[in-house]
Amino acid sequence: MKITKDIYAGSLSLLTDLYQITMAYGYWKSGNMDKEAVFNLFFRKNPFQSGFTVACGLEYVIDYLKNFKFREDDLAYLETLEGNDGQPLFETGFLDYLRTMEFSCDIDAVAEGSIVFPHEPLIRVKGSLIQGQLIETPLLNIINFQSLIATKSARIRQAAGNQTVLEFGLRRAQGIDGGLAASRAAYIGGASGTSNVMAGKIFGIPVKGTHAHSWVMSFEDELEAFKVYAESMPNNCIFLVDTYDTITGIKRAIEAGKILKEKGYKMVGIRLDSGDLAYFSNQARKLLDQAGFQETVIVASNDLDENIITSLKMQDADIDVWGIGTKLVTAYDQPALGGVYKVTAIRQNPENQWEYKMKLSEQAIKISNPGILQMRRFYDEDGSAIGDMIYDTEIPESTNKYYQIIDPLDHTRSKKINKNVTQRELLTSIFKKGKLVYESPNIEVMKTHCQQELQTFHRGIRRFINPHQYPVGLEKNLHQLKTDLILTLRKK
Amino acid sequence: MKITKDIYAGSLSLLTDLYQITMAYGYWKSGNMDKEAVFNLFFRKNPFQSGFTVACGLEYVIDYLKNFKFREDDLAYLETLEGNDGQPLFETGFLDYLRTMEFSCDIDAVAEGSIVFPHEPLIRVKGSLIQGQLIETPLLNIINFQSLIATKSARIRQAAGNQTVLEFGLRRAQGIDGGLAASRAAYIGGASGTSNVMAGKIFGIPVKGTHAHSWVMSFEDELEAFKVYAESMPNNCIFLVDTYDTITGIKRAIEAGKILKEKGYKMVGIRLDSGDLAYFSNQARKLLDQAGFQETVIVASNDLDENIITSLKMQDADIDVWGIGTKLVTAYDQPALGGVYKVTAIRQNPENQWEYKMKLSEQAIKISNPGILQMRRFYDEDGSAIGDMIYDTEIPESTNKYYQIIDPLDHTRSKKINKNVTQRELLTSIFKKGKLVYESPNIEVMKTHCQQELQTFHRGIRRFINPHQYPVGLEKNLHQLKTDLILTLRKK
Repeated sequence: MKITKDIYAGSLSLLTDLYQITMAYGYWKSGNMDKEAVFNLFFRKNPFQSGFTVACGLEYVIDYLKNFKFREDDLAYLETLEGNDGQPLFETGFLDYLRTMEFSCDIDAVAEGSIVFPHEPLIRVKGSLIQGQLIETPLLNIINFQSLIATKSARIRQAAGNQTVLEFGLRRAQGIDGGLAASRAAYIGGASGTSNVMAGKIFGIPVKGTHAHSWVMSFEDELEAFKVYAESMPNNCIFLVDTYDTITGIKRAIEAGKILKEKGYKMVGIRLDSGDLAYFSNQARKLLDQAGFQETVIVASNDLDENIITSLKMQDADIDVWGIGTKLVTAYDQPALGGVYKVTAIRQNPENQWEYKMKLSEQAIKISNPGILQMRRFYDEDGSAIGDMIYDTEIPESTNKYYQIIDPLDHTRSKKINKNVTQRELLTSIFKKGKLVYESPNIEVMKTHCQQELQTFHRGIRRFINPHQYPVGLEKNLHQLKTDLILTLRKK
Repeated sequence: MKITKDIYAGSLSLLTDLYQITMAYGYWKSGNMDKEAVFNLFFRKNPFQSGFTVACGLEYVIDYLKNFKFREDDLAYLETLEGNDGQPLFETGFLDYLRTMEFSCDIDAVAEGSIVFPHEPLIRVKGSLIQGQLIETPLLNIINFQSLIATKSARIRQAAGNQTVLEFGLRRAQGIDGGLAASRAAYIGGASGTSNVMAGKIFGIPVKGTHAHSWVMSFEDELEAFKVYAESMPNNCIFLVDTYDTITGIKRAIEAGKILKEKGYKMVGIRLDSGDLAYFSNQARKLLDQAGFQETVIVASNDLDENIITSLKMQDADIDVWGIGTKLVTAYDQPALGGVYKVTAIRQNPENQWEYKMKLSEQAIKISNPGILQMRRFYDEDGSAIGDMIYDTEIPESTNKYYQIIDPLDHTRSKKINKNVTQRELLTSIFKKGKLVYESPNIEVMKTHCQQELQTFHRGIRRFINPHQYPVGLEKNLHQLKTDLILTLRKK
């Protein structure tokens, strides 16, 4: 095995569930592969009991689709698979078909950093049934994880206000890409930088870091450790003060800071990584100020998240920079977003009528929305978002003066929105017939977009506990179409 | 960006926290880089309130270390980093030093699939201070995650008894490698197979899968969907029956099963993915048996874990195969193992005495153990494990007839073990002076090793709730040395 070569050697086409390939085989075998289908990627609940979710991961999706290709070694592996009778699972004709397959779907998606809500289409795939099916798993893997982390990061950013938030989580992240993709998503969601050097190199994220306990432990005593560090890297000094005793550590950092000052350098900060962060930060601030280090910042770390930051602020902790690891990169309190990918319409070919599709369930929340979906966000005169409408692009618009949107889980809740208000479509064209027609913005643009979009929502929607529910509804005709379809399917 | 090329192009040397590189720079700059150091990777608490942990990830670690190399593009990136004065963070001499660096440490580690406990060294690194430091983050990233998932999988395996457990989690996993490495670790811990095709190809794990709801939805009706599937892949038929109505779905699967039977094929199973799994599995069993499909298995999925499996079994659910996704691959109830990596001894060069090192803390559990550690497991006459001893390989063995081991968190708890009992060392040599001297066993061997080792522990240690605490202690002389060192450090 060679992780860096075998796993990521150029094709991720086998990064999927086997049933996608067996279904693809079934579509091919039964002559259904070229039916035109529409799939919709969405989630049903905001994570962390949040009032919103940050969409993230599209650039990874684009990269995956641009390089979509079954290679010879992929096909050779598929050829070895057997059914329960010991015979090959796939005919060679099918493998030949995969060999020459070129990605040719239309993809529409919301931009990264956008604020989205349950039931909204984040990605819409339109193309051959077989291709729409084959790409399901990687799209879910990428979007579920990065949206989860970007949302967590946006919550932490809100708790931290204007203060610096550094993501430190690589050592506890779920695998190599669990770390890398988390650094990326955390930055888009609001983190100021990362400790992950590879994320810095690949994504252009600011990287930060000074020293650990092991640096201090490698010297005879703590003061010597700080002095040698200051001599070695005078322009990057944040001293970690809790290796042996925190208060003593702070005093020794101040001694080293004085030497730095004499040489014309700055002691940028000290870091607290254990103990009572409220108490020690107050003590540290006092000692630093008394010694003339008013500008030296206090960095805190140790299993922090948005709730602990809020609590520490309420206790008047003197913390300027928040280092967040495990709780951010694993989204510790809810480590998965339950995004799903459902077929919403199929037709034999573009000359035919669409057949609308949906999955039924005993639970209303698990019933999917049929159609060729798009969504539109409406704003009031102040630029505040007032509601999102999910609609079917194939249903002609009514001549009414207003749109009516109906809650997908409760048909008694509806809202009318004047057609004249400011509005914009949220799904943008990314691929047309397999050709990339979109250029991902710079990561800084995504990050800014996220913060700016968040500001367009009422603060009740952004609060951590019992947030206000933002109105998202199905356009009235789509709602009617869905209701009719449920009744028809139940009768069957 | 190109995920498959840029991220994993051949070197993971930047997959680390920046502070590892700044510390490395400090060691280089201050002439300390070639001091000989020993580091110890361990964790402090079993995850999931489990009584044990499964060590996993070593083969990834080996792969990372074998390919350890700073490439030109890595160095070019490091050259761009700046300190707070806008000057380069690193001198070019240091980058030249990194350019020619070759990995040269000794690595000792426990085999994958081994059962391990808090405070035990999983990996011991002995070599230059600078190299021991540079490799910390990837070692933690790999071992923390894979050990976490292997442990979760071992718990699920215990709940499932001899039944089949399939890992289905890729779509909800934390990133690309969060999925791949999880499939690997889940298999070693006890899963019978995975849906992840790439994990099948790379790691040789059995892959399983048939069809999803979208297959059923792509046809006019459910029966047609099952029939066409049976025609297309008669040797791989497990029908998903809950797209519209579960009981009706089961009856239609039976109809399709009869057609399969006539053609000489088997209906392998049906799958339930929603609703009351206990109730529907009982109904399904009855209907299948009545129709002569006694051998057709019932597969269940939908947010399962070891606790829900146990509950369903207590309710006499007729479930034969467990499909486990999110809860397994993200270790949902505790998505990170808090493994750490601490320096435990340093000397100027091999002619000098070791200086023992440890990190102090207000909390006993956070105080690390000093020394050049190895561990030994003892067995009674029946082959049952009776205790583990962590000892320092440099302290000469006493002439007593027994070993005395002392609980690292409570010095009043100790245990004597006769020196004549069966015993074995748990750390094996992996690298010697940077040269690989170990061959990773086949993944099937690791998997078997895990189950066999588990059987050597008292069932009280394996139970889910309030497990018995397996005795792990510091050898008496090591305990004494540690106590003396704490007192010395506290005095400073």
